[in-house]
Amino acid sequence: MKIGLAQLNLHIGNFNENVTSVAFEIKKAQQFDIDLLVFPELTICGYPPLDLLEHKKFIEDCNRAIQQVSPICTEIGVLIGSPVLNTKPTGKKLYNSVYFLNKGTVQQVFHKTLLPTYDIFDEYRYFESNTDFKLLQFKGKKIAVTICEDLWYDQPVETDFANSRLYTVNPMKKLMDLKPDLIVNLAASPFSYTKIKAKKEIFINNAKKYKLPVIYLNQVGGQTELLFEGGSLVVDAEGKIVKEMEYFQPDSCFIDADALINCRLSEEVNDQDPVEMIHNALIMGIRDYFGKTGFDKAILGLSGGIDSAVTAVLAVRALGSENVHALLLPSQYSSVHSVSDAETISKNLGMNYDVIDIQNIFNQFKTELQPLFKGLPEDITEENIQSRIRSILLMAFSNKFHSILLNTSNKSEAAVGYGTLYGDMAGGLSVLGDVYKTDVYNLAGFINRKKIIIPENSLTKPPSAELKPDQKDTDSLPEYEILDKILQQYIEFKKSIKEIGKTIGDPGMAERVIKLVNQNEYKRYQSPPILRISSKAFGAGRRMPLVARY
Amino acid sequence: MKIGLAQLNLHIGNFNENVTSVAFEIKKAQQFDIDLLVFPELTICGYPPLDLLEHKKFIEDCNRAIQQVSPICTEIGVLIGSPVLNTKPTGKKLYNSVYFLNKGTVQQVFHKTLLPTYDIFDEYRYFESNTDFKLLQFKGKKIAVTICEDLWYDQPVETDFANSRLYTVNPMKKLMDLKPDLIVNLAASPFSYTKIKAKKEIFINNAKKYKLPVIYLNQVGGQTELLFEGGSLVVDAEGKIVKEMEYFQPDSCFIDADALINCRLSEEVNDQDPVEMIHNALIMGIRDYFGKTGFDKAILGLSGGIDSAVTAVLAVRALGSENVHALLLPSQYSSVHSVSDAETISKNLGMNYDVIDIQNIFNQFKTELQPLFKGLPEDITEENIQSRIRSILLMAFSNKFHSILLNTSNKSEAAVGYGTLYGDMAGGLSVLGDVYKTDVYNLAGFINRKKIIIPENSLTKPPSAELKPDQKDTDSLPEYEILDKILQQYIEFKKSIKEIGKTIGDPGMAERVIKLVNQNEYKRYQSPPILRISSKAFGAGRRMPLVARY
Repeated sequence: MKIGLAQLNLHIGNFNENVTSVAFEIKKAQQFDIDLLVFPELTICGYPPLDLLEHKKFIEDCNRAIQQVSPICTEIGVLIGSPVLNTKPTGKKLYNSVYFLNKGTVQQVFHKTLLPTYDIFDEYRYFESNTDFKLLQFKGKKIAVTICEDLWYDQPVETDFANSRLYTVNPMKKLMDLKPDLIVNLAASPFSYTKIKAKKEIFINNAKKYKLPVIYLNQVGGQTELLFEGGSLVVDAEGKIVKEMEYFQPDSCFIDADALINCRLSEEVNDQDPVEMIHNALIMGIRDYFGKTGFDKAILGLSGGIDSAVTAVLAVRALGSENVHALLLPSQYSSVHSVSDAETISKNLGMNYDVIDIQNIFNQFKTELQPLFKGLPEDITEENIQSRIRSILLMAFSNKFHSILLNTSNKSEAAVGYGTLYGDMAGGLSVLGDVYKTDVYNLAGFINRKKIIIPENSLTKPPSAELKPDQKDTDSLPEYEILDKILQQYIEFKKSIKEIGKTIGDPGMAERVIKLVNQNEYKRYQSPPILRISSKAFGAGRRMPLVARY
Repeated sequence: MKIGLAQLNLHIGNFNENVTSVAFEIKKAQQFDIDLLVFPELTICGYPPLDLLEHKKFIEDCNRAIQQVSPICTEIGVLIGSPVLNTKPTGKKLYNSVYFLNKGTVQQVFHKTLLPTYDIFDEYRYFESNTDFKLLQFKGKKIAVTICEDLWYDQPVETDFANSRLYTVNPMKKLMDLKPDLIVNLAASPFSYTKIKAKKEIFINNAKKYKLPVIYLNQVGGQTELLFEGGSLVVDAEGKIVKEMEYFQPDSCFIDADALINCRLSEEVNDQDPVEMIHNALIMGIRDYFGKTGFDKAILGLSGGIDSAVTAVLAVRALGSENVHALLLPSQYSSVHSVSDAETISKNLGMNYDVIDIQNIFNQFKTELQPLFKGLPEDITEENIQSRIRSILLMAFSNKFHSILLNTSNKSEAAVGYGTLYGDMAGGLSVLGDVYKTDVYNLAGFINRKKIIIPENSLTKPPSAELKPDQKDTDSLPEYEILDKILQQYIEFKKSIKEIGKTIGDPGMAERVIKLVNQNEYKRYQSPPILRISSKAFGAGRRMPLVARY
């Protein structure tokens, strides 16, 4: 029995395009005499469809799309993800399901049992949990059809307060009573650079525990902030990875199920460098955000600093240098090298740029505000005005030339509120908002590994917002090595101030930093979508009350 | 048996303040010989605590706070909401629970069974569902202790695609087997002006169905965007409302349980005007957002139009005229009356204001952008620049004088993207972002009902953004009466384009409007928190994928 795996990049709600991709893969598979072709979770509508699932018409469109696909599945069997109506009188309106298509029609339907409802997942918002356990019997094989979280009954945890068993039912245990020959898992499992290994272990552990091969098929591509890395896996019954599909791009392959069951497949699998993965994930995220929203062109502000330099490189790699434009927006406080470093980056990338000095506009603002502010010293107000003038100029370019403004802030800044709302926090998409400053340096090192693209000076000068004379980030923040350690302990691992103070050996600093994080929830509330590369990004996966006193 | 009800306004995470309020109420109740005192859901930490619940320290602080309250509950029995650890090896880490305190210690714990996970609710993100059904036996009474959603097994639905029975277990059915004498419901049930009647019916129907009195105790106050109206109810066993507590303010009362059980209590209850309720809800929301974040002062832009006028009135009523400052920011496109109308409003409210003409700054921007834009006609770009200059000036005032900028956009504009990101969409809090334009007129009418505060001209002139010569909203949008009808059908009731086209008799217009709604998700993603007064507000309760093609 030949099983095909179609690791697709789907477009949420774009039924025509999704059906076309699916039909193309089915036809190709039929040419290769594939017996069973597997698509990812919720293939038909794309994942995550969010509240579109609450629209009756959207579900009707899903059903219609399945009806378009079914007739071409004559000889071949197809497992494809789609929402399915719950016809029972109680419970959520939908199931997160998989159709088995064969002989030109729907033969069987499998529902998801474990519905992740944490971090970025909201599945219990829409779906009822499966209670009916059965196998797919096809061409002499008994297959346990599972959907993503169904294999995550035992899951890795990052904090000492999380429960590694979030569910009271283990669907694999139920399915094992029916004696399957192998496990197929249709997934939409988002990328986190810290979880690649843990994710592999999930499938290895399931294979070993149940002594069955596991075929894990993930979707690939960017869906707003969520990045799906692909990297689908085939694991034999001994827990050996025998096939690893492409990362960050669509891919398809097939395997011989009999050889798999008998552990007679093999492939060399190498661990990837996490920095390279982040680099590739962000490029995919930019490309898909633009592609899926129908834009070609990006605009960004280049300060000569490392964040905007790295963002420019990623944007050019995602969209092509002809589609990325930079504005260099110096003021009286810009350092000597700011413009020249930014020009060097632009030239190295073959990217067009313009320079606009913001001094005259800044002076005009100060003149107009003088009657209101007379006698008061300059403070953060004037710093913010400069940052906001830049964003007006960038947004003006964005409006005039139909470009999306890329935000260049990093996660460390976003965490402590070291940024100006409607100023440098503006943009249609935040590229580095989930990348700590120390990892921005790592990305720059990776980018420069073969050839210097980002000038040395951008890497070595002390980070500065350049909004007042001789300003440096360390005037108000600790060194980034320490800051990032505190932030990760707090945001990702949810440690207490006390514990973090102990770890870094400076309780006062831990407290000051965490207070900044909490006080700046209101700024992040208005942040653009942030490409998610960690296990806990700002955005939909982290929900904090703005009015809390904590 | 005397039962006391303490309808409190709590502060999320502010354990000291919450414990102080609770202790005060307990002491007061003891003076009145109350037997059992009831507090709202999650009183100890405030509702909704969101992801603070994932911090071990936060739960330890909840436990500590309960330990501070217990010792004072000697004679009196107290029912108080708090998260409680789930000590079982599987399932979510917490329960949403109620402690029964008496004799100075915790006597019993009740967990919530039905965990709302829709709209603004995410309870299954944190909590495991109760499976252990028992009553509170106290002073000869058997009490069914339920938590909010537990009485919503049968719930009203607004769309023909929603299921009115979202859960497979009915906790009241289980509790009825134990033959209770009355039902107590500790709640945190947010305000929606369309649901006040339906909410009352929930408790009336439960009382009638189970032939038992229902005591429903809601929290009151604003928690970021969520507004809790209070309005706690006592319903007798015949389904008659015998006590309705204050709306939009803390309140306490007590009732005689024996008289209640025997249907010997009575009170005249009047339905409130929904416009008045919206008015009061928004004032409470502003007051609590400022109070709980520690700010006194608001700044807003006054255009002479109805939205900013109504926002100013609500702000002054919430914070006092001495704490609200207006900027009047006219341009060459402002109508003759703009400034004079805005001045009239400011004077009528006793509110300070300044006038800054934005023309010079606008000219300076055009001069600096001329090399980039040369030869290109003016378009939406220049309109947005004006709007963004205004927000820089407002934010400068906000920064310099530690004020929060109030956003004045309405729901109709937010829906169709008729607003400028980082311009008129800016602000720390959106006051009218859940109020359709037609309801803004209703609010203005209510405000002016006794005395003209908002000048007639602001009410009668055609709505305009005044960003280009002779601009009117109807240049690009339908009349608001029609627009709002389309929007409500789509956003609240989730009707399809086809259905809405039929209802309004203009399929093309329905399609154009709904396309605008979908295309502008990206703008709303960066909107300030919006005070929620409807059953479906933009924000956390409505989650849409930005990259969808639908």
